Amino acid sequence: MLNKLSAEFFGTFWLVFGGCGSAVLAAAFPELGIGFHGVALAFGLTVLTMAYAVGGISGGHFNPAVSLGLAVAGRFDIKHLVPYWVAQVLGAIAAAAVLFLIASGKADFTVGGFATNGFGELSPGKYSLQAVVIAEVVLTAFFVIIILGATSKLVPAGFAPIAIGLGLTLIHLVSIPVSNTSVNPARSLGVAIFAETAALQQLWVFWAAPLAGAIVGAVIWKVLLGKE
Amino acid sequence: MLNKLSAEFFGTFWLVFGGCGSAVLAAAFPELGIGFHGVALAFGLTVLTMAYAVGGISGGHFNPAVSLGLAVAGRFDIKHLVPYWVAQVLGAIAAAAVLFLIASGKADFTVGGFATNGFGELSPGKYSLQAVVIAEVVLTAFFVIIILGATSKLVPAGFAPIAIGLGLTLIHLVSIPVSNTSVNPARSLGVAIFAETAALQQLWVFWAAPLAGAIVGAVIWKVLLGKE
Amino acid sequence: MLNKLSAEFFGTFWLVFGGCGSAVLAAAFPELGIGFHGVALAFGLTVLTMAYAVGGISGGHFNPAVSLGLAVAGRFDIKHLVPYWVAQVLGAIAAAAVLFLIASGKADFTVGGFATNGFGELSPGKYSLQAVVIAEVVLTAFFVIIILGATSKLVPAGFAPIAIGLGLTLIHLVSIPVSNTSVNPARSLGVAIFAETAALQQLWVFWAAPLAGAIVGAVIWKVLLGKE
Amino acid sequence: MLNKLSAEFFGTFWLVFGGCGSAVLAAAFPELGIGFHGVALAFGLTVLTMAYAVGGISGGHFNPAVSLGLAVAGRFDIKHLVPYWVAQVLGAIAAAAVLFLIASGKADFTVGGFATNGFGELSPGKYSLQAVVIAEVVLTAFFVIIILGATSKLVPAGFAPIAIGLGLTLIHLVSIPVSNTSVNPARSLGVAIFAETAALQQLWVFWAAPLAGAIVGAVIWKVLLGKE
Repeated sequence: MLNKLSAEFFGTFWLVFGGCGSAVLAAAFPELGIGFHGVALAFGLTVLTMAYAVGGISGGHFNPAVSLGLAVAGRFDIKHLVPYWVAQVLGAIAAAAVLFLIASGKADFTVGGFATNGFGELSPGKYSLQAVVIAEVVLTAFFVIIILGATSKLVPAGFAPIAIGLGLTLIHLVSIPVSNTSVNPARSLGVAIFAETAALQQLWVFWAAPLAGAIVGAVIWKVLLGKE
Repeated sequence: MLNKLSAEFFGTFWLVFGGCGSAVLAAAFPELGIGFHGVALAFGLTVLTMAYAVGGISGGHFNPAVSLGLAVAGRFDIKHLVPYWVAQVLGAIAAAAVLFLIASGKADFTVGGFATNGFGELSPGKYSLQAVVIAEVVLTAFFVIIILGATSKLVPAGFAPIAIGLGLTLIHLVSIPVSNTSVNPARSLGVAIFAETAALQQLWVFWAAPLAGAIVGAVIWKVLLGKE
Repeated sequence: MLNKLSAEFFGTFWLVFGGCGSAVLAAAFPELGIGFHGVALAFGLTVLTMAYAVGGISGGHFNPAVSLGLAVAGRFDIKHLVPYWVAQVLGAIAAAAVLFLIASGKADFTVGGFATNGFGELSPGKYSLQAVVIAEVVLTAFFVIIILGATSKLVPAGFAPIAIGLGLTLIHLVSIPVSNTSVNPARSLGVAIFAETAALQQLWVFWAAPLAGAIVGAVIWKVLLGKE
Repeated sequence: MLNKLSAEFFGTFWLVFGGCGSAVLAAAFPELGIGFHGVALAFGLTVLTMAYAVGGISGGHFNPAVSLGLAVAGRFDIKHLVPYWVAQVLGAIAAAAVLFLIASGKADFTVGGFATNGFGELSPGKYSLQAVVIAEVVLTAFFVIIILGATSKLVPAGFAPIAIGLGLTLIHLVSIPVSNTSVNPARSLGVAIFAETAALQQLWVFWAAPLAGAIVGAVIWKVLLGKE
């Protein structure tokens, strides 16, 4: 179990450090910055890489909503849900702290939103709460469907991290302008602690919507798609 | 059969929601937008991800032209063609509706073209009907050739979604400026319903050309390439 | 043999149509264009996709330099070299013709360089003949080393198209500014026929350098790397 | 052993030629340049491609820090460490020399930083020594964890080059603004020889931090994650 929780801790660390790190450090670099496209790729590759590295140890969730969705679908023992969530949240916070340490190592640094998620004034494109909730629910539901499908017996072993990681890239390509893309409550929490904005006050949305979406995805899979 | 049609519904939903969603929401975001390159990647990843997730259930067409091409090549039972087309079209419309709901959740929203396909004034680069038809026929033909080849016995199991998904990315990298890239009549239909432009009047082109292209691709495969 | 030559014809058609097509149609589109990065991805994906689709039929060369390199390394029967070259050149010319037809379907079209390769005034970054020759020789040599290695017995079946296709993307990421990237004499020839510039007069460089590089790569593999 | 050292020489040559080459030649090309995103992809693809091509010969390290990390984790015989380091350094220097030859083949060439790594004034975003050291240690540690995990028995054969190569892309997406991204002492050394800046004086950082990070990663793997 220590192995599993370590894997979730380091996997979620990497997701936040790599994904939010690319956003904070590299997205808006003058002239040569990577933009939303590069950030989307970075988030996806955090999951692709750590799913290969430690997916065989813990299942490679790195995301409380994913753990919940897998539990609802009967693929993950619900008695491990809380320990997984704790490991994921601690990994996310540790990553945000290390990222803060690096990001603050330049003269003109300002914390700002620190890659947090938000709606209304805190949405990159100023999208409403309703738009943000719909986007997060739909995208998390499909993320869980992709995970359940790609790790089912119908797919040869080894390909799941590609489908899942690039699925997360796709989700970011669509929704960074809307909510800055969460689909992952731990990722939202980790950076919210450090933001100068009111991100922490909006954090409940990025627990409620991804968790609800994960349940929706798991139910769609069980009822309409999977044949397990 | 319900499983299969559900898979086609959700797969085509994801294609339109992810692909057209990235175009509507993220392509032209100030400074950090993902551009045509990001949209091309998004379209491809919708197919890559759902082909892994549900390809083993329905075959993973998500596209009326692909279903037709596979039927012509003898890989898909033609008596399922109409049900598949219905599921695909319904999925595309549902996705466009949800996308509209999200996109309209900001103060300065205007529908505009809503990622529809078009020629002449409705082509991103103002390309003529003839140019659009040639592009759509050639690109759909190759898309079907890639699908038939990547799912043939000559390729080890598991790689087809990579080839097919990234093939759709490539097709978009070439032709977004020409027709905004269809190669998929359901995708064209779904968003055309919501557009403010005359996209619906041009919709026939994006059924005729991809379907013709799919037949061309299937015939080239049968006559010149495949050894089945 | 007809199957093999058809596969080389359509594969090289796709390489030129997709790669040069993305450059001509989409690279410099105002605001949203795909740039050199998108063109590099497009070229690589042409090979990735068709190597999966028809690589099992013809070997998936799509490039006279690759056919020569494989022959030198003992992986391809030299008596098929000329028929392969003919099929590749015809595919490239046909693709350039169809691309011309599409590209000219807008009011303000000018042919210009039409994605041809060149040195001096015809190099995107005005690089000298010497710089262009060194780049093309080194890059083609490594391309052949990647092909020989990725298709050797040391690599599990199915991965070669990923390595080879993304290798071509990498080669373009480095050298579009230098020579507009050839490493493929057929690709250079196909578009040179249509260019308004003096590309045809410089064409000899983009046969000589890639073919020399292919021999260098094959020899390095045989002498220093491979254990066949 | 000659095969192994040749593989490390050519692999590291390709890493520096492709990665630093894309940075020097293509990153800042007017209008169409590939930016940090394209450079990040190029670095990752050098490793992905050569890991497929020659990974079965030498293990595909191409990086003194990786060789050290694998030795610490018990996956690589420490008595081969020095020969590997020599081959890697020679490959990096040779690549930088050939890149210099090409890059200088245009009228307005200036050497400048030549894609070297640095802190303070020599950091792209003017990050402090402390920020650079933390970033390089953390990123190299995770790079080694990804390598150890992706090449462990828990992952089917053939996928490791994808995880490792795209892991290097991710690392660059995060940290080019900070240190210009090393995580590889040989890569830092090769180009530092040619730079006009004081990069050579800062080179010790890009040996010390990646080597320390590699040890950290190997220890985390052994103690907390792996079950070997």
